[in-house]
Amino acid sequence: MKKVQKHERISVITNILTNNPNKIFTLAHFCDIFNCAKSTVSEDLDIIKDIFNQYELGFIETVSGAAGGVYFSPLMTNEQIQRFTGELCELINTKSRIIPGGYIYMNDLLYSPTISKNIGIALASLFKDTEIDYVITVETKGIPIALMTAMVLNKPMVVVRNQSRLTDGTVIHMNYITGSNHRIKTMCLSTKAIKKGSKVLFIDDFMKAGGTAKGIIDLIQEFESEIVGVGVLMATQKPEEKLVQDFKTLLWLDTVDESNKVVDIYSVGTPSEH
Amino acid sequence: MKKVQKHERISVITNILTNNPNKIFTLAHFCDIFNCAKSTVSEDLDIIKDIFNQYELGFIETVSGAAGGVYFSPLMTNEQIQRFTGELCELINTKSRIIPGGYIYMNDLLYSPTISKNIGIALASLFKDTEIDYVITVETKGIPIALMTAMVLNKPMVVVRNQSRLTDGTVIHMNYITGSNHRIKTMCLSTKAIKKGSKVLFIDDFMKAGGTAKGIIDLIQEFESEIVGVGVLMATQKPEEKLVQDFKTLLWLDTVDESNKVVDIYSVGTPSEH
Repeated sequence: MKKVQKHERISVITNILTNNPNKIFTLAHFCDIFNCAKSTVSEDLDIIKDIFNQYELGFIETVSGAAGGVYFSPLMTNEQIQRFTGELCELINTKSRIIPGGYIYMNDLLYSPTISKNIGIALASLFKDTEIDYVITVETKGIPIALMTAMVLNKPMVVVRNQSRLTDGTVIHMNYITGSNHRIKTMCLSTKAIKKGSKVLFIDDFMKAGGTAKGIIDLIQEFESEIVGVGVLMATQKPEEKLVQDFKTLLWLDTVDESNKVVDIYSVGTPSEH
Repeated sequence: MKKVQKHERISVITNILTNNPNKIFTLAHFCDIFNCAKSTVSEDLDIIKDIFNQYELGFIETVSGAAGGVYFSPLMTNEQIQRFTGELCELINTKSRIIPGGYIYMNDLLYSPTISKNIGIALASLFKDTEIDYVITVETKGIPIALMTAMVLNKPMVVVRNQSRLTDGTVIHMNYITGSNHRIKTMCLSTKAIKKGSKVLFIDDFMKAGGTAKGIIDLIQEFESEIVGVGVLMATQKPEEKLVQDFKTLLWLDTVDESNKVVDIYSVGTPSEH
């Protein structure tokens, strides 16, 4: 059998780790692929770790112990988040995005696989020290960024719907009041969706008064679980008092000046807690 | 300046290509990163191409001409699709998934980042010879697999909604009749969503009579664009006559036997046109 060359092993390991963020692979897994010694794989991983650091491609992390191994973490550094959210601001702040009523058209950004993936990485990076079992969102526009956040964290995503469907089976159904215009809305989630005692991260595209986030916190209590973080792409500066205390946002929206076609939006230097 | 080693270049190129499916990179892009000659990068790419082939990690494709370069295509071979859809059948065919009314609970599969990504790769693989500008879906459950299909194809995704929102701006609004129970439903899509003359791939999780697919075909005509393919995760065997002629499915659902808790589902050997 032909001996596998070093650059061959390094390419295969790089591909597998890159394709499976936050998934732990044992050294034995790679030894089996290449039919080589653990020490060989271990050396390869050290090399890859250095390369990823040097070229800012993310982090190779080692987990020790019986369930140990290595995994790839694509999380952004604060500097990378700052650069990315700065670019996002420029993309958003264009005249043609302003639509009647002072709203901003953002569907193309939210639904772009590339942009939603980077938003997912940035949002996941804000919660890097939080233990998370599920990523939850509310239909519809938050789904792509929530899915990408879940992909980065290698956790399942859960979608709360405004109306239950036959395919949901038994559902927990909750009415709540929206924070900004005090309308009654409904949240529905299948009882199968979340296991008791879970830690759940809520991700959404937009927060105004925080009524949806508050609703989700209440809903998740019915599952005997807990919201351990709230992360949004964009929050409005007003009202200053939100219905939830702790949340993180990548962007702050100040005003949309419809007549002069100017969006006053900015990214926070170091994404900080509210 | 320290010369960049071969395995270092190979790891970085592998990471960049893997992370950006279907995105074309010029050789000059890599030359700039490593400060090396084109011939060096070209040799590296040949090596990576061989490695990816050998380990079935997807394909490195070359594009010639002025806008030329290389890209990574994670598409599955027919054999890989068969293996994956076979595994999916086993996952779906479990007693606990059958819910009252003879429906199957699949939210956990559809919303799993890993599974939806593989479904996206498999669906994109069915349309590998089709030129596509957008991937379109209808809210809600099809969004994750449509987003992943769009990610693999490196194209934007578009989501049709059942009701228009303020943030959609001007909207084309269309009523249509569902194929199976003849109910009137609504489709809404922002006029900004699709450029005239586009080729659009419709992706959805489920097809029964095909009323939604037919509705989408009609709606897209209003955008002076064309549906060039319809791909679903699962289609029911009955009714045999669907409202659309050409569609591709990864799975066929025959019957759900609620009393005996058996789902009769199968994947097609070679995914074939209907």
